[in-house]
Amino acid sequence: MPGSSFGRAFQVTTAGESHGPGNVVIVDGCPPGIALSVDDLRRDLRRRRPGQSPLVTARDEADEPEILAGVFEGRTTGTAIAILVRNTDARSDDYADLRGVYRPGHADYGYQVKLGHRDHRGGGRGSARETVARVAAGAIARKVIAEAFGGQVVGYVRQVGEVIAEVSEPASVTCEQVETLPSGEPNLVRCPDAAAAQRMVALIEQVRDDGDSIGGVAEIVATGVVAGLGEPVFDKLKADLGKALLSLPAVLGVEYGVGFGCATMRGRQHNDRFVAASDPGSAELAIATRTNRHGGILGGISTGMPLVVRAAVKPTSSLPHEQATVTAQGEPTTVVSQGRHDPCLLPRFVPMAEAMVAIVLADHYLRWRGQVGSC
Amino acid sequence: MPGSSFGRAFQVTTAGESHGPGNVVIVDGCPPGIALSVDDLRRDLRRRRPGQSPLVTARDEADEPEILAGVFEGRTTGTAIAILVRNTDARSDDYADLRGVYRPGHADYGYQVKLGHRDHRGGGRGSARETVARVAAGAIARKVIAEAFGGQVVGYVRQVGEVIAEVSEPASVTCEQVETLPSGEPNLVRCPDAAAAQRMVALIEQVRDDGDSIGGVAEIVATGVVAGLGEPVFDKLKADLGKALLSLPAVLGVEYGVGFGCATMRGRQHNDRFVAASDPGSAELAIATRTNRHGGILGGISTGMPLVVRAAVKPTSSLPHEQATVTAQGEPTTVVSQGRHDPCLLPRFVPMAEAMVAIVLADHYLRWRGQVGSC
Amino acid sequence: MPGSSFGRAFQVTTAGESHGPGNVVIVDGCPPGIALSVDDLRRDLRRRRPGQSPLVTARDEADEPEILAGVFEGRTTGTAIAILVRNTDARSDDYADLRGVYRPGHADYGYQVKLGHRDHRGGGRGSARETVARVAAGAIARKVIAEAFGGQVVGYVRQVGEVIAEVSEPASVTCEQVETLPSGEPNLVRCPDAAAAQRMVALIEQVRDDGDSIGGVAEIVATGVVAGLGEPVFDKLKADLGKALLSLPAVLGVEYGVGFGCATMRGRQHNDRFVAASDPGSAELAIATRTNRHGGILGGISTGMPLVVRAAVKPTSSLPHEQATVTAQGEPTTVVSQGRHDPCLLPRFVPMAEAMVAIVLADHYLRWRGQVGSC
Amino acid sequence: MPGSSFGRAFQVTTAGESHGPGNVVIVDGCPPGIALSVDDLRRDLRRRRPGQSPLVTARDEADEPEILAGVFEGRTTGTAIAILVRNTDARSDDYADLRGVYRPGHADYGYQVKLGHRDHRGGGRGSARETVARVAAGAIARKVIAEAFGGQVVGYVRQVGEVIAEVSEPASVTCEQVETLPSGEPNLVRCPDAAAAQRMVALIEQVRDDGDSIGGVAEIVATGVVAGLGEPVFDKLKADLGKALLSLPAVLGVEYGVGFGCATMRGRQHNDRFVAASDPGSAELAIATRTNRHGGILGGISTGMPLVVRAAVKPTSSLPHEQATVTAQGEPTTVVSQGRHDPCLLPRFVPMAEAMVAIVLADHYLRWRGQVGSC
Repeated sequence: MPGSSFGRAFQVTTAGESHGPGNVVIVDGCPPGIALSVDDLRRDLRRRRPGQSPLVTARDEADEPEILAGVFEGRTTGTAIAILVRNTDARSDDYADLRGVYRPGHADYGYQVKLGHRDHRGGGRGSARETVARVAAGAIARKVIAEAFGGQVVGYVRQVGEVIAEVSEPASVTCEQVETLPSGEPNLVRCPDAAAAQRMVALIEQVRDDGDSIGGVAEIVATGVVAGLGEPVFDKLKADLGKALLSLPAVLGVEYGVGFGCATMRGRQHNDRFVAASDPGSAELAIATRTNRHGGILGGISTGMPLVVRAAVKPTSSLPHEQATVTAQGEPTTVVSQGRHDPCLLPRFVPMAEAMVAIVLADHYLRWRGQVGSC
Repeated sequence: MPGSSFGRAFQVTTAGESHGPGNVVIVDGCPPGIALSVDDLRRDLRRRRPGQSPLVTARDEADEPEILAGVFEGRTTGTAIAILVRNTDARSDDYADLRGVYRPGHADYGYQVKLGHRDHRGGGRGSARETVARVAAGAIARKVIAEAFGGQVVGYVRQVGEVIAEVSEPASVTCEQVETLPSGEPNLVRCPDAAAAQRMVALIEQVRDDGDSIGGVAEIVATGVVAGLGEPVFDKLKADLGKALLSLPAVLGVEYGVGFGCATMRGRQHNDRFVAASDPGSAELAIATRTNRHGGILGGISTGMPLVVRAAVKPTSSLPHEQATVTAQGEPTTVVSQGRHDPCLLPRFVPMAEAMVAIVLADHYLRWRGQVGSC
Repeated sequence: MPGSSFGRAFQVTTAGESHGPGNVVIVDGCPPGIALSVDDLRRDLRRRRPGQSPLVTARDEADEPEILAGVFEGRTTGTAIAILVRNTDARSDDYADLRGVYRPGHADYGYQVKLGHRDHRGGGRGSARETVARVAAGAIARKVIAEAFGGQVVGYVRQVGEVIAEVSEPASVTCEQVETLPSGEPNLVRCPDAAAAQRMVALIEQVRDDGDSIGGVAEIVATGVVAGLGEPVFDKLKADLGKALLSLPAVLGVEYGVGFGCATMRGRQHNDRFVAASDPGSAELAIATRTNRHGGILGGISTGMPLVVRAAVKPTSSLPHEQATVTAQGEPTTVVSQGRHDPCLLPRFVPMAEAMVAIVLADHYLRWRGQVGSC
Repeated sequence: MPGSSFGRAFQVTTAGESHGPGNVVIVDGCPPGIALSVDDLRRDLRRRRPGQSPLVTARDEADEPEILAGVFEGRTTGTAIAILVRNTDARSDDYADLRGVYRPGHADYGYQVKLGHRDHRGGGRGSARETVARVAAGAIARKVIAEAFGGQVVGYVRQVGEVIAEVSEPASVTCEQVETLPSGEPNLVRCPDAAAAQRMVALIEQVRDDGDSIGGVAEIVATGVVAGLGEPVFDKLKADLGKALLSLPAVLGVEYGVGFGCATMRGRQHNDRFVAASDPGSAELAIATRTNRHGGILGGISTGMPLVVRAAVKPTSSLPHEQATVTAQGEPTTVVSQGRHDPCLLPRFVPMAEAMVAIVLADHYLRWRGQVGSC
């Protein structure tokens, strides 16, 4: 059954494989009148682009988007938007040897059982290549939340292997810090703690040179989020954020606020205290919490505090190193990835995760407005 | 917008509040011909029931289900099933003082902003009371997966505060171990490691006597799961499991397999090795992995290995202890919960989490069968 | 797969059979703050009720609704509303002889093939009994559209057999005319043309006395409808209205405006002329059409003119007269309906059709508001 | 809110406008392993193509499809399929004068109110140009139903103005009869009654020469349909077929079987008699009806008899003749269509309607299989 659509009010539908002609996204439900051009899409596509640095895969995709529908005279029409990003550097030959082999860590076997066949070229639909369509949709979602309520989404790498960044104030991290080091050089690993970033780069290079790969954790923060987003009881904001992030390749876990750290906490220690963020009794009374252990969501509904979520990303499964496995007939064999892969997925994961968070926020904002704006 | 439905092929829709007349669930898409009686529903409802032990809330609900539709002559008809569980021990007066106060850790403020009002009686729709409807639906889902592919779902408490259970083989934990101690006494805390269970009980009692609450981690294991479940690219099995568990009250994080532990792993260390689970080349060839760090899901698709997921559950927010907060007008005040609450949510969380996992598996199995059974 | 939910922003999910314990509806997405009591539901349920007049089935159902969730202190909470209507006069014995027989005109055979069994008691889920849940939901939808944009829905019988009512101005027919004759007596057949109503009653009585049944046409008119409802390209207002009405039992056709009459028209004759309905250039400029051949919808989007739709309703299939058919084994047999049936479905069809039109309008209004109210 | 997706198991999502870069469709849920090439798409696209005969619009579109995703080595992968059809002969200048004018019979005013703007170039998203995406999806649906159960869909023109075709046996009309006259010449009007076809052509030419347009009725017949399709209670087969056809531009009414003709029928006259279509008691017992007044659907579920539906299509709204209307400011003005339009929509409507019927059948077949194939 279909599984390529996400969102109910801001609906994103994608198609495309790693080595097919291209990736397509249809965004339906975007409000009318929003200025949108290919330049708006290019920024995030470039941040996600393979070949952007020595730390990532060498596959060289221009990732140039074409808007096929839904924009007229530079503005969204309010009807379905379609965007196409062609694949230009697919090298199917790299995968010829993999036709009958199950690669460790990949969905090859599941796809084979599920569909009775599989596209052995780079994972087909199971490849992270499909996220190019999500990132294009996310760029539109960013504009929606910025115009609607001034929302901003900033993601960064919190951990690579044993290196953990110090980020004392997640809500104050800027996109500039994530993209550029204090020295002015590009922040290849997208970690706002410059010292940790340096150690992360060294670690990834060492792992890469060792023919291995490494995992990590990304943190995504949304600021300016209005209170009230999230629909009881299944479509809570935390539930849809969790689904959005877990739908990304290689994500093994998601948490928000103190996350798994809550397991060792007592209630008195955990609850954040409500305080008035403006004069009590004033017309535009805003309520805040003194601390933000709850990560911007209580009972599944946004509170207006910064939204803080984290995703655990596993080490890249494809390795330029011999791994034991079996053939489709169950015979033992070995496999070495000839394709071009990232030694650490985290730097390119950041824009993918930001896109999904922006999509969830746009979707929930539009869902909420329909109901409350009505009577 | 609506958020009270979950699942696409096995669709669960609920209604009901903590202190309203009752909770209702409509399950649509259940296959015809499955034997179903109220007894099938009672087992899990009892495990979730308040008042079941000194470790949980004293609210005394019989939680007696009534099947209103969809069952004829003891079997499901294949059309919509409706079940009603009435609330019988709601004490709205306990909440009278809370009308104008935002309780720390609860969704009160979010609901107020979202809907312009809120049901102050025990959280209304935001209360964990609504999960009674999910557990009833989960009992049906269990029967579907058992008949369809022999699937079983067993959950248990893995951690309470600093006490962590030893569970060497998650897939071999039985429901009996979870419910009953080796001594034959009820396993009040639902932890299969009897020694840890004892320490957990002591810890919860201490916390309760201290007027506090405590968090923990539950682990849910599904065995007998067929390979091939999960729909690319958004409705991956891990994504829908994550949403299902995060939609439950008090869950701050979800992970599967090694989960957040992947952050410090290298690829060679992380990948599980595929092996033939039967004679290579045999007609019914089954492929397995030698280890199960991937928790039964690769690329979002089930592999046939045991499915292992964990959820982090925060300490109960309502405390029988004075907490500082503000009124709806922003004036400082304090609140003490007069309602009856669990000092630790984990023991009653287990059947809720099992229900959601069973629902996701039933849903994905039916989704998959439609597509592959067709041509 | 599930088929018991309708609507995306105002979502109606039903369960229930003709001879089960009861019928249930969950309405999710209703805006908060709308006054709602069982009295609001009773009015339309009474108009749909069996046993209301000598022209309809003698089955005697009180059709008393119980609100189980979603209403607090007399107002909708904005979360899911649940309503239960119990079956009290189901007489399953009337159907004992039908267990192995396919009744002409009914879905018995289709259900048998579809689900491998069927509920022979009055058609089970295929019975028009299920519409009691829709009518309850429709009563809520009426309140939504009345509060949101002053919308009103009035339906009536336009034709029974060869008797066709004269209705010169559909938009000016009142509910009072439909329910009460100029004489003050109940308008049993719900036709606003009193002379035609009299002839319809006579015709239905004659058909009933003859052991037969008869078809007809209902017309439903919605006034006060805002322009702009309907979502391109599949969820046009006409498409969702068509689906809503065709989902009702016994409906064989739907048309709006001039409907099938368009087949013999020329474009110049058919197009309605746009005119200013207020001073040109005024702040609140309203555009209207001089005539309303388009029935209030152009290009699938409402124009603000009265919405006029019609449904063709077939003669009741169950007849108190011997009909030839076959058994489940294919052996020839005959069947005589012992159950209690309407000789003409039209009088009780009117509130069902009104409910579905109101639900579609509420749903589309809420869908539209989400998108346009946002940026 | 989104409205550009149709179907739940076979999901069709489209984007594209009359004068934008192109039209895109994503088909998600198509079973794997079906042979599919651009040639399969071209056949129906050609039948829908503008410029195909003197009876239709002169806009000259090649309507050449490109498959962007979802097909690997000539077969569907079971994941999302994407197809692009570029617009190559859009002449936006033809519409420059229409920027501030509401064209009679079009959705211009509704779009303006709905979205606060509109694409004046040929109706934008409201144009019938979008159906090119549906026809591409329909070509895939045809392959699904042919492989799954041998289903065939054939449509034809039943009526143009006062000319009504004689079609004694709808289920025996072939695609060849619809496309080619007995003389071997193309059947420009797609009416299988050759004599009527001739009169229809003459009528359309006369209307065209008169600067006018004309309406009609199309009939679509599906044969080989399995019994059991359709989901109670809202997603009945008749309901989804009705929605599908009413979602097409210019359709004002839909009926199946005897349709509106039922209004004057008695029950005994209307009910079709069930008979055994094979030896009673045989292993593969098939039940049929002696007549097919029910058009292949009873109680919303397919019976296995030929499915017969009709759609009323209004006269083309755009006329090369001066029509009175108003500007966006409400000032009286006149409009003459400079664009290229069909004098009668019926000939090109046939493949559009066939596509929608095939999509509904594919969708319902896959929905059904999921549920019954499971336990």
